[in-house]
Amino acid sequence: MDSTQKNWLPPGSLVYIGDNFEKVKINIIDYNETFYSEIEVQNIEQCKDNTDENDTVTWVDIKGLNDTKVIEEVGKFFGIHRLWLEDVLNTNHQPKAEEVDDLFFMILKSVKMDAQPLTVEYEQVSLFLGKNFVISFHENSDDLFEPVKARIRQGKGRIRSSRADYLFYALVDSMVDNYVQTVNVFENKIEDLDVKLDIDTNDTLPKIIRNAKNELLYLRKAALPLRDSLSAICRSEHEDIGVRTKMYLRDSLEHSIQVVGQLDSCKELLGSLTESYNQSLNRKLNEILRVLTIFTSIFSPLTFIVGIYGMNFNNIPEFQWEFGYFFVLTLMSVIAAGMIVFYRRKKWL
Amino acid sequence: MDSTQKNWLPPGSLVYIGDNFEKVKINIIDYNETFYSEIEVQNIEQCKDNTDENDTVTWVDIKGLNDTKVIEEVGKFFGIHRLWLEDVLNTNHQPKAEEVDDLFFMILKSVKMDAQPLTVEYEQVSLFLGKNFVISFHENSDDLFEPVKARIRQGKGRIRSSRADYLFYALVDSMVDNYVQTVNVFENKIEDLDVKLDIDTNDTLPKIIRNAKNELLYLRKAALPLRDSLSAICRSEHEDIGVRTKMYLRDSLEHSIQVVGQLDSCKELLGSLTESYNQSLNRKLNEILRVLTIFTSIFSPLTFIVGIYGMNFNNIPEFQWEFGYFFVLTLMSVIAAGMIVFYRRKKWL
Amino acid sequence: MDSTQKNWLPPGSLVYIGDNFEKVKINIIDYNETFYSEIEVQNIEQCKDNTDENDTVTWVDIKGLNDTKVIEEVGKFFGIHRLWLEDVLNTNHQPKAEEVDDLFFMILKSVKMDAQPLTVEYEQVSLFLGKNFVISFHENSDDLFEPVKARIRQGKGRIRSSRADYLFYALVDSMVDNYVQTVNVFENKIEDLDVKLDIDTNDTLPKIIRNAKNELLYLRKAALPLRDSLSAICRSEHEDIGVRTKMYLRDSLEHSIQVVGQLDSCKELLGSLTESYNQSLNRKLNEILRVLTIFTSIFSPLTFIVGIYGMNFNNIPEFQWEFGYFFVLTLMSVIAAGMIVFYRRKKWL
Amino acid sequence: MDSTQKNWLPPGSLVYIGDNFEKVKINIIDYNETFYSEIEVQNIEQCKDNTDENDTVTWVDIKGLNDTKVIEEVGKFFGIHRLWLEDVLNTNHQPKAEEVDDLFFMILKSVKMDAQPLTVEYEQVSLFLGKNFVISFHENSDDLFEPVKARIRQGKGRIRSSRADYLFYALVDSMVDNYVQTVNVFENKIEDLDVKLDIDTNDTLPKIIRNAKNELLYLRKAALPLRDSLSAICRSEHEDIGVRTKMYLRDSLEHSIQVVGQLDSCKELLGSLTESYNQSLNRKLNEILRVLTIFTSIFSPLTFIVGIYGMNFNNIPEFQWEFGYFFVLTLMSVIAAGMIVFYRRKKWL
Amino acid sequence: MDSTQKNWLPPGSLVYIGDNFEKVKINIIDYNETFYSEIEVQNIEQCKDNTDENDTVTWVDIKGLNDTKVIEEVGKFFGIHRLWLEDVLNTNHQPKAEEVDDLFFMILKSVKMDAQPLTVEYEQVSLFLGKNFVISFHENSDDLFEPVKARIRQGKGRIRSSRADYLFYALVDSMVDNYVQTVNVFENKIEDLDVKLDIDTNDTLPKIIRNAKNELLYLRKAALPLRDSLSAICRSEHEDIGVRTKMYLRDSLEHSIQVVGQLDSCKELLGSLTESYNQSLNRKLNEILRVLTIFTSIFSPLTFIVGIYGMNFNNIPEFQWEFGYFFVLTLMSVIAAGMIVFYRRKKWL
Repeated sequence: MDSTQKNWLPPGSLVYIGDNFEKVKINIIDYNETFYSEIEVQNIEQCKDNTDENDTVTWVDIKGLNDTKVIEEVGKFFGIHRLWLEDVLNTNHQPKAEEVDDLFFMILKSVKMDAQPLTVEYEQVSLFLGKNFVISFHENSDDLFEPVKARIRQGKGRIRSSRADYLFYALVDSMVDNYVQTVNVFENKIEDLDVKLDIDTNDTLPKIIRNAKNELLYLRKAALPLRDSLSAICRSEHEDIGVRTKMYLRDSLEHSIQVVGQLDSCKELLGSLTESYNQSLNRKLNEILRVLTIFTSIFSPLTFIVGIYGMNFNNIPEFQWEFGYFFVLTLMSVIAAGMIVFYRRKKWL
Repeated sequence: MDSTQKNWLPPGSLVYIGDNFEKVKINIIDYNETFYSEIEVQNIEQCKDNTDENDTVTWVDIKGLNDTKVIEEVGKFFGIHRLWLEDVLNTNHQPKAEEVDDLFFMILKSVKMDAQPLTVEYEQVSLFLGKNFVISFHENSDDLFEPVKARIRQGKGRIRSSRADYLFYALVDSMVDNYVQTVNVFENKIEDLDVKLDIDTNDTLPKIIRNAKNELLYLRKAALPLRDSLSAICRSEHEDIGVRTKMYLRDSLEHSIQVVGQLDSCKELLGSLTESYNQSLNRKLNEILRVLTIFTSIFSPLTFIVGIYGMNFNNIPEFQWEFGYFFVLTLMSVIAAGMIVFYRRKKWL
Repeated sequence: MDSTQKNWLPPGSLVYIGDNFEKVKINIIDYNETFYSEIEVQNIEQCKDNTDENDTVTWVDIKGLNDTKVIEEVGKFFGIHRLWLEDVLNTNHQPKAEEVDDLFFMILKSVKMDAQPLTVEYEQVSLFLGKNFVISFHENSDDLFEPVKARIRQGKGRIRSSRADYLFYALVDSMVDNYVQTVNVFENKIEDLDVKLDIDTNDTLPKIIRNAKNELLYLRKAALPLRDSLSAICRSEHEDIGVRTKMYLRDSLEHSIQVVGQLDSCKELLGSLTESYNQSLNRKLNEILRVLTIFTSIFSPLTFIVGIYGMNFNNIPEFQWEFGYFFVLTLMSVIAAGMIVFYRRKKWL
Repeated sequence: MDSTQKNWLPPGSLVYIGDNFEKVKINIIDYNETFYSEIEVQNIEQCKDNTDENDTVTWVDIKGLNDTKVIEEVGKFFGIHRLWLEDVLNTNHQPKAEEVDDLFFMILKSVKMDAQPLTVEYEQVSLFLGKNFVISFHENSDDLFEPVKARIRQGKGRIRSSRADYLFYALVDSMVDNYVQTVNVFENKIEDLDVKLDIDTNDTLPKIIRNAKNELLYLRKAALPLRDSLSAICRSEHEDIGVRTKMYLRDSLEHSIQVVGQLDSCKELLGSLTESYNQSLNRKLNEILRVLTIFTSIFSPLTFIVGIYGMNFNNIPEFQWEFGYFFVLTLMSVIAAGMIVFYRRKKWL
Repeated sequence: MDSTQKNWLPPGSLVYIGDNFEKVKINIIDYNETFYSEIEVQNIEQCKDNTDENDTVTWVDIKGLNDTKVIEEVGKFFGIHRLWLEDVLNTNHQPKAEEVDDLFFMILKSVKMDAQPLTVEYEQVSLFLGKNFVISFHENSDDLFEPVKARIRQGKGRIRSSRADYLFYALVDSMVDNYVQTVNVFENKIEDLDVKLDIDTNDTLPKIIRNAKNELLYLRKAALPLRDSLSAICRSEHEDIGVRTKMYLRDSLEHSIQVVGQLDSCKELLGSLTESYNQSLNRKLNEILRVLTIFTSIFSPLTFIVGIYGMNFNNIPEFQWEFGYFFVLTLMSVIAAGMIVFYRRKKWL
């Protein structure tokens, strides 16, 4: 849908702006300490039976945002405001955390280092936390939450014995862990560039640095509001987020602060890399011009001298000398030697 | 009117500083859930009848600011302070939001991407929100609020069933949407420049970058106070702005925050574009000088040698050699080859 | 007086540091809605009669600061602390606003665009606001407050019907208006430079930019504390400043905020001008060197070839050829044409 | 352990990420004003006997983090939360200070100037302060806390007569002292570079500056959160940190503020060093090109003139002149002298 | 004493780190409105008699910090904490203001413009304010407080009739006045450089600018915490600092704010000076290369042409022409004139 048309729609209109039109998958996981079930449904109506029981945590994981009808039904079923559903569909939305009444809403960007180094893929993830359920929306990846799902299936850690807030934390934490890994790889690549700069200064380096700068810009744009959202959650007094879960969330917040710190370092490193590259260009320029000047200044006088004795005047006295030729050769050698000594002194040679 | 003269006028004097002298148009829309009327009047007196009924929302949309008398009458009719009317007429005023007694006053800049890319047109919009009316002033565009008017006419969305505060929001939101679109186009154009830089580095690029920087400066100057105004409105406790409308306004605020974030990215992108352009200039310089130095340093010695044997000394021994000429040609080939090998090693060739 | 000596004086010593030694002029204006008198006195004692009546506003306007005795008398008469008088005389003082007991004290800089563009003249203005009087000190200009005086004389606007606080506002506002005008002119001049840059890049531009930068620095140093002072006044709860006057002062504050915003824009514009100028220098350098390289690389091989056939060897085979000369001319044409084609490909020609 | 695998572990899993696999050493010091014992144990169980007595301060110093079992036992013994133990093992953790219930937890980086100048070694130190014990974890150094241990053994200063909080302070203070020394050395080295720049501008300087910049980046990343942590401790109201100890901690805080201030200076010094180096490169370029231009512009015309008289036309009039040769020599001397005078005027010579 | 050894000392150890080992001088001034005595003692015991009387203000001025025993005695006598004495001796300490119980402690740097311009000398001054005494420590200068002592001796100003807090203010104010003077001189020198830049661009300028930048860095490091300390004092509610003295201290605070403002300006001025110097280097480069290019491009073709007719082919047709030589001369003049016209058009000549 063209963005100019959007202006003519009333606020709260649900419009999908992405380009993934695969079928929407709804994955429902229901568990408590002793019980576990996982089903894939086509229609949110089917999940009703599962959410009845109050003593289980229900996680509705929706992959694919193109079918606005499905999204709308999910929204109605769990009582999510249309403006929020609009945010879920607007995959360019900035990360944020909000709470209204009995729901906690968080948008964040999942990052994944691409096969090609220094390129990062983003995917918008929307999380809703209710009394005993968590809803997660995302667009493309099939295996985004696989580590968390595995932990639930295998009953590893505290997740099965905890409430929905811990599940919410587990999802956020797995996203933050992606940041930590991505930024670590990113930082290492940049430190590698630093070494590369000294070895060969080929012309691809400025392009790589520029790409890294742009990539860094987008990483910061995703990580900074993530940090602020986590900080807001840690300060929030929403009753559905327990004291113990908050301690875990503070741990995630610390990681996100560290990520932002590393991104700041990367920025400075890239800045000093650019500077060093420019200096190396300038040093090379000086070297080239030194060579040029040495050649010109040695051969200009010599060529002038041989020019003199190429003149066709009749009465040039030197032509009468017996060793005129050798005298001129010697003179020229002395001049050349003098120039070389001069440039040695100037440390140009 | 000359600005130096303004100094001699008492504060609150109404002076139009723009250059559009078309006839002022007053458009009055009156509606509630069931009722709808739209008239165009010449005189604000005519609108009295419409505003009598308390259960309708009245929207007075004034286009054209040159007739200060009309503005003054509107001001008197709705009880707007002269200082505010002065602000309405001062089309260079910064965006702001203010509330006094029972009126809510907001100035903002409408933006529109020009046909020519990277040029933005601005128009100052002043909005007043009263108990059951909204007044809007703007200078030039006929179709500025057309999307909102169409929604009212067609009864789409919640607008007909809501109060004046929602109309106020709808107008602000349509302005903010313009920013979102404009900044998206702007950002895309700049990312295009990034690609263009690698393909050809013709001399128009620095001019384009400079224009984009200036345009960005003005966009920021319009968007930053807009964001701050929206943030102030969301925090305000004015009774005429309902809780539900505030939730919508918070959505607009989020969009404006995103706009500012994108503008910040654009700034960094433009900065690194400039840097890259400078580097490409420097690399070109190095290339040019490498060519120059190679030519000079190969031909200087050769020209010198042929000069030697162009001398007219009688007793140059080489002239007696049978293959003197070919010896010299060989010598020069060796020297030239040596220089080429030398430059290959230095990676200058 | 030398500044090193000042160290030996106790604090509160009144020392004039300027260089205007014309006679001090004291102008006393007394008015209310119906009454108006204006006298020029030599001695502050003379003004006693005027200030007796409680129902008029008295404005004592002192021009010239060299006669410290007069300043001292004025201070005693109106109960102004010696430290404040010291500030009045220290014409390098930063703008500030302070209130003690029943007096409100403000220092600000009046600005005036000089005949020569991009040069601004400053004059320190000190204002005291009491219950029913305003005292203003300044150093040089005769017509600084003329617009306000004219308004009082002619009874235009609200000034005659208002109290001393409105007079205080009117004086501040006329100063702020000067900033608005000065900064508008300044901004226009800088935008003109932007156009000039493309037309001719003569060597005066960097000097003009540098002067503009320095001038901007001083304008900011005057405007920033002015804005902060106005903001402090608007927040202050001094009883002598009425609610309505505060609304007017907020208007002045808005103007001063806009001035600071424009100065920030000017700074960025000057920064990008400098950058563009540097780029144009670099582009010129590239152009010069391109010309140099093309000439050198075309003529070096040609000169070398003609040198070969200028050698005096006896048995050069080409000399025997019938069309040797024309062959060599053709060879050289081919070489020259090849170089030109090569540079066309490289887009150097 | 690979970091990608970590994603699949539940939070609170203890993973050592360093590369020191020497045996863990646990050193237990128990003292009060009159009593002192120091033992090295393999197993934390052995320390039970020591910590029984309530009137002594117990310091458990653990060197080596590779044996997660030992760490876990220590954690259980002293009631440390698993998330904190995870932080202790994550040797890339940012410095921080936290308090929960009856424990005070601080992470900081110990710095040590390497033998090679401008290189700093980091080691993460984790400190826990309980009612009457202090636990310290670090990874490599054997003699990190030797100065403090010596003071305890010899009973110097207030340490033996104070409680655990003073011991905690003493450890922090010895770390901060390391910063003070390191940064002093660092600052001196950079000021030395400043002098070096004027003497010889060899090509190693930019590399040294770049290394120093990177090193500075890491020092700041360690010192800034250290300062913030100390500031948090000084503001904290944890009951285990006494009023007197807080005064000492404020002293450490002051030192850390000074360290950050010095690092800021270093940054500016390095910035202006880079700038000066670039300027010296540019000046050198100008000098080289001056030499080139002088040689070219003197010898071009001379070589042209001798070329003229090397032409083989039959009827060149000058060849008939008796002193034609000497006339040409004189002409060339005049031209050369003229050029030299011209360049003297331009101050190029 | 080596700084590495310091690590092994307990906190609060008194160590002198400076290099002035002259004998310590203790100067005791005792005064009230009617009484005045001034003695020089070797031992602080001697001052006991003076401080007995409660109705006089006692000022103990200690010059020289090398004798730690004397410092310790003073500290004991007036009840100063050892940590503070350590600060007094640590002459690299940052300026600060602190209050504990009944003592007010301030560290600041006295500045003095050196004979050589743009070099500033620093001396650390420590002040203690008690109920009716002031203690001042400094290291070198004999006449640091001479202006204040003179005012006491001569009974000028309010000093004799005021309490210890006013003396404290007078000392601080004399230090601040030194800053004002120093920074004024500094600013003037930098503005002089601005003029110098246009007249001659000799190679000493970058060195002067660099020195000024470093000096500025140190001035800021001294002035910024001084301003913050004064601001803290003005906000403090220490009972020993009276309301009236606070008004005076606020005046000093204003001066220090102005000093910081001027230093900021100096920084910007130095920045734009560096920029201008770099531009002038670049312009010079362009000029040099213009000369080079003009010479090369005029003489390359000419030298080539004369080379042609220097060839020894037998059948060059031009040699048969009667006016061949003059034809060639004319041709060459035309070429040279064409080049000159071309460069005129390009504004290179």
